[in-house]
Amino acid sequence: MTIVEKVEVGVLGATGTVGRRIVRLLADHPWFRVAEVAGSPGSAGALFPEALAADDDGPLPESVAGLRLRDPGQPWSVPLVLSSIPSAAALEVEAGLARAGHLVVSNASAHRMDPTVPLVIPDVNPDHLALLDRQAGRWSGGIVTNPNCSAAGLAVALAPLHRRFGVTRVVVATLQAISGAGRPGPPAGQLLDNVVPFITGEEEKLISEPGKILGRIDGGEWVPAEFPVSPSVHRVPVSHGHLLAVSVELEDPPTPDEAARVLAGFAPPDEVRALPSVPERPIRVLDAPDRPQPRLDRDEGEGMVVTVGRIRPCPVLSLKFSVLSHNLFRGAAGAAVMNAELCRARGRVGSGAPS
Amino acid sequence: MTIVEKVEVGVLGATGTVGRRIVRLLADHPWFRVAEVAGSPGSAGALFPEALAADDDGPLPESVAGLRLRDPGQPWSVPLVLSSIPSAAALEVEAGLARAGHLVVSNASAHRMDPTVPLVIPDVNPDHLALLDRQAGRWSGGIVTNPNCSAAGLAVALAPLHRRFGVTRVVVATLQAISGAGRPGPPAGQLLDNVVPFITGEEEKLISEPGKILGRIDGGEWVPAEFPVSPSVHRVPVSHGHLLAVSVELEDPPTPDEAARVLAGFAPPDEVRALPSVPERPIRVLDAPDRPQPRLDRDEGEGMVVTVGRIRPCPVLSLKFSVLSHNLFRGAAGAAVMNAELCRARGRVGSGAPS
Amino acid sequence: MTIVEKVEVGVLGATGTVGRRIVRLLADHPWFRVAEVAGSPGSAGALFPEALAADDDGPLPESVAGLRLRDPGQPWSVPLVLSSIPSAAALEVEAGLARAGHLVVSNASAHRMDPTVPLVIPDVNPDHLALLDRQAGRWSGGIVTNPNCSAAGLAVALAPLHRRFGVTRVVVATLQAISGAGRPGPPAGQLLDNVVPFITGEEEKLISEPGKILGRIDGGEWVPAEFPVSPSVHRVPVSHGHLLAVSVELEDPPTPDEAARVLAGFAPPDEVRALPSVPERPIRVLDAPDRPQPRLDRDEGEGMVVTVGRIRPCPVLSLKFSVLSHNLFRGAAGAAVMNAELCRARGRVGSGAPS
Amino acid sequence: MTIVEKVEVGVLGATGTVGRRIVRLLADHPWFRVAEVAGSPGSAGALFPEALAADDDGPLPESVAGLRLRDPGQPWSVPLVLSSIPSAAALEVEAGLARAGHLVVSNASAHRMDPTVPLVIPDVNPDHLALLDRQAGRWSGGIVTNPNCSAAGLAVALAPLHRRFGVTRVVVATLQAISGAGRPGPPAGQLLDNVVPFITGEEEKLISEPGKILGRIDGGEWVPAEFPVSPSVHRVPVSHGHLLAVSVELEDPPTPDEAARVLAGFAPPDEVRALPSVPERPIRVLDAPDRPQPRLDRDEGEGMVVTVGRIRPCPVLSLKFSVLSHNLFRGAAGAAVMNAELCRARGRVGSGAPS
Repeated sequence: MTIVEKVEVGVLGATGTVGRRIVRLLADHPWFRVAEVAGSPGSAGALFPEALAADDDGPLPESVAGLRLRDPGQPWSVPLVLSSIPSAAALEVEAGLARAGHLVVSNASAHRMDPTVPLVIPDVNPDHLALLDRQAGRWSGGIVTNPNCSAAGLAVALAPLHRRFGVTRVVVATLQAISGAGRPGPPAGQLLDNVVPFITGEEEKLISEPGKILGRIDGGEWVPAEFPVSPSVHRVPVSHGHLLAVSVELEDPPTPDEAARVLAGFAPPDEVRALPSVPERPIRVLDAPDRPQPRLDRDEGEGMVVTVGRIRPCPVLSLKFSVLSHNLFRGAAGAAVMNAELCRARGRVGSGAPS
Repeated sequence: MTIVEKVEVGVLGATGTVGRRIVRLLADHPWFRVAEVAGSPGSAGALFPEALAADDDGPLPESVAGLRLRDPGQPWSVPLVLSSIPSAAALEVEAGLARAGHLVVSNASAHRMDPTVPLVIPDVNPDHLALLDRQAGRWSGGIVTNPNCSAAGLAVALAPLHRRFGVTRVVVATLQAISGAGRPGPPAGQLLDNVVPFITGEEEKLISEPGKILGRIDGGEWVPAEFPVSPSVHRVPVSHGHLLAVSVELEDPPTPDEAARVLAGFAPPDEVRALPSVPERPIRVLDAPDRPQPRLDRDEGEGMVVTVGRIRPCPVLSLKFSVLSHNLFRGAAGAAVMNAELCRARGRVGSGAPS
Repeated sequence: MTIVEKVEVGVLGATGTVGRRIVRLLADHPWFRVAEVAGSPGSAGALFPEALAADDDGPLPESVAGLRLRDPGQPWSVPLVLSSIPSAAALEVEAGLARAGHLVVSNASAHRMDPTVPLVIPDVNPDHLALLDRQAGRWSGGIVTNPNCSAAGLAVALAPLHRRFGVTRVVVATLQAISGAGRPGPPAGQLLDNVVPFITGEEEKLISEPGKILGRIDGGEWVPAEFPVSPSVHRVPVSHGHLLAVSVELEDPPTPDEAARVLAGFAPPDEVRALPSVPERPIRVLDAPDRPQPRLDRDEGEGMVVTVGRIRPCPVLSLKFSVLSHNLFRGAAGAAVMNAELCRARGRVGSGAPS
Repeated sequence: MTIVEKVEVGVLGATGTVGRRIVRLLADHPWFRVAEVAGSPGSAGALFPEALAADDDGPLPESVAGLRLRDPGQPWSVPLVLSSIPSAAALEVEAGLARAGHLVVSNASAHRMDPTVPLVIPDVNPDHLALLDRQAGRWSGGIVTNPNCSAAGLAVALAPLHRRFGVTRVVVATLQAISGAGRPGPPAGQLLDNVVPFITGEEEKLISEPGKILGRIDGGEWVPAEFPVSPSVHRVPVSHGHLLAVSVELEDPPTPDEAARVLAGFAPPDEVRALPSVPERPIRVLDAPDRPQPRLDRDEGEGMVVTVGRIRPCPVLSLKFSVLSHNLFRGAAGAAVMNAELCRARGRVGSGAPS
């Protein structure tokens, strides 16, 4: 594939925890160039770096440090907008952008479960992008979404098992990192010598999203995978990296060794593997009995590789294992960038500005 | 019940994390008087307080501060010994004490699954104490055990549900406190910005112990409850308090409200409720959507009350909820003391020194 | 002293981190009865417990659980108001209450350095209360303040040294707890695997307040102690308890042993010692080489005793030591309650409602 | 400088926290090749990666992954040995190596204050290397040391100030990371919701080492800088990065701005700057009021740049500021590697194996 000219993209929600990582990932991207950034309406006009609080992700690359924040409500001039704004706002704002002809690649949950909106992980269900055709009469542009940050890791780990052995039921407990809560996130006093067994809205997403992602497109329609997921979510004092304890029932249960081989061998189709941000092998299987661990394993493959360990029989369902994925990369910013790449590769991004 | 004279007891493993809490709980106990304490063989002769590293449980009560550590291998003069030594040593040492005529109330795992050894939580299965009779030909004394620190909370929460609705399968993820690992416990570097999905030997105990505790005594024999338990354990940076995310399948599934009523209403029989360390209501049900939390709820009922929250339907099994119990009190030291009390109340403690 | 009738008091800022602890401390107080509570203006009308977020300080005592929050701007009917509102608001609100005839005992910094306002720690400088007379023409009521939460511990530790050996210079580094920042406090992400060498406005208070507290009243006027303090403050991931590393230059330098004796022997005058919340010995000296530590020592004397350890020569100034005090009790809520007690004992509290 | 052939080096203590970082830093080093590694005597024979516990520094580079651990007591074949063994062992072991003709570059404290042993930070006092000549009659090889991990950051920050303004007294409080304690380091329970105001032996090193480093060589003899240092050390729950709050008295006190310029402008001589591991500018001055912070700033310049912030007047001494340096790189492994480089550049490393 030869891509001669970089596509200009906009980033909506660019000053948030996820947005700034999207900007970073795009800063030296071979296919995209960040041309417009917007934060909250009140921040319009400020130089991008000045709108950012001191942070743990360091100074911005030069290519974006000179950008000024635009008013998110004013018309955008780019064909492609990556959005990571809060879901309450996303419902209308993203639909408005799609109506105005932009392709919106969104990390927000607002449109994820809309039956005409693709919920895509490129190395898992790239063909779902075809749902964009169902948006034709509705918007002149379109909306593509990526999953919730803990559903992302779960879906990647379930995908090869589902294809090969048929997932029928899933029980999952999560230990989720602080950065998954955005800014400012939970107060320090809450997570000192403590863990919290609740995150607003999180279990609902873990219930609904995996079935959409692992479903299939049939006659242009989305047909969900029909397995129930039972999540119990927890916030733990970890900076980045969501850890999941998964028990899964399978139609045709493999041994742990077979499962490990299938997980480790999971590879996206060549077309997807050629996308700049998709790892060669999306899953790394660890043998050590006490892995994966957030601090040790979250950065695997620059945060895009999901690590799986402790694969063993489940005496209640079929198989049990631990899954770790970086909530900001595989689970959010990187997920959106991969989706933008898939859209570009499949010719879903218009070359000029929308009218 | 009138108890005129205090029973003299010994504490074996008195310098450990659990042992010193046992000593504290017994320091002003209405029925018992700590007469002998022993740590490791090398510590014999030292004044008890001097053998303790500076600690977070403060200075010792006067009634025990003057004791000297004895050689654990020398004959004991007390009828009752509470033991919290490492399991590898416990197998022989505790059997030796039982052979010498002592009643051993043990927190160690060594003898827990022995079919002639009662594994007892007084407010759950006090009748299992009858298994002591099966030890008659074996030892002139006897051994009674309490469960593992995370199995304890699980068994208490399952007990009323099992009786009323019939537990058939359990999936449980644990988030366990540091103090459950004893001294020195995991290094600080391991649990800073991290959680660890493994604790040696812990899942095995969560698999085997609940079925023993919730089993029944039939014709003097122990008949286990036959439901599989599938645990996934984690160590988290919390000082005290093990949190469990439990999914349970029930023969006759209740609504969450019914389950909450049954859990909150769970009360031990009068004989057990009269024991000094048994709480009036062993379970407290919390309504707030984000409870129980270790730091906020572990000290409920001086660490002897198990808190349960987030009771909701499980889309895979029947019911889902969170359980929190203090690993050092309900899960270890308090469990042993309750067992000693039950033994005393049922006349299982000889009045004099064993021969 | 016989106090027949309890004085009715109001608590302003009752829903904050400090205010709720004041309410608790007063709930069963022998001299005071909480009759009125107010939070922010918007919270007026709510039942007090309902206005409180779930918290680590547990359910409220019955005696105050039935109170409703009043509008803080409406006239109060009590003679004495304890205030712990933010300083920006305190400047006017507290002056208004004093003008209306109330005695205001304030934890806010707004009026602390006002030369006519006493800045009092009862076991250190009770005679400073006489400054109230200087407020006569200004307000029909009055304002009494207690120090900043880290200045409090420093002033208590310096007081006996200053009297006996003459403090001439102080260098102090602080390691301050999260709860010192009120609600919500710093975000969890900021203090995970991190410490922060800055707290807004804190160093200014450590510079100015000790000299006021250790100054003297001469002819009814306040004369400050004239020693410079050089602070370097840090926020650390500790829930409660401010730890200070103090180097002090003394006119007449003692040996560490002499200093330890003077510190441990420090006792308030009998009149002050009779106040319900003043500890018998305000300072406890610890011998262990690695104490005081926040988690182990902050609760000494129900958080009202300051612990001092590591007393040793300072090769640059004269003497060096570590000081720990509970920021919410000795440093805030308890400090205010002691001041209210001192005011009551000295007849500074009117018996009826102000006109 | 043209270096055609890599010098073969040995690493003693290669399995420890510092040693493995030395190995990593040398793995692709332009001047050195790791030819021999040794851990504890008991580990001899094992493949190097197998002797390492799972760790936070990831898999080893290929160039060293195939090495086998040698018996540290057997003769070494390399001219240069980098040592990071415990100081108790280092006294004899390192002297033995020096006697056998090796040049030992040591991170251990054993020989640091020996008047004939250079204590060197290449970008601060490279000329101290000349002290090696004083070892001539003693050993056929030699010993060069680098400072303690917190003294390193202090000495770098003081160096340009001392040269220009004359340091006369220093008060310093440290907040030190866990990894400074090596393995296993403090237990997790000790540093959860806690800080500890003591580290064995640390204050002694902070008192003695800066004066040696900032001293001068006069007629081949070491003449120490004669300013007292008064340290108060603390262990805090931070993984890496020692933070220091420094108050310094200067003969000719600058304004904070002047001090900032001098610190930021500090540059080693060209000969030293050409060493592969020496940063262009050893100090970075930060303007933000709340920096440096360990998590945000420790990795500056791959952990070799010291960050300084909060430069302000000290009302007791002259100037006050915060210093942060990575304890494992600038403070240990990187310090040793820089010293090895300096030795090589100055022709202090023999080309063949010692006899």
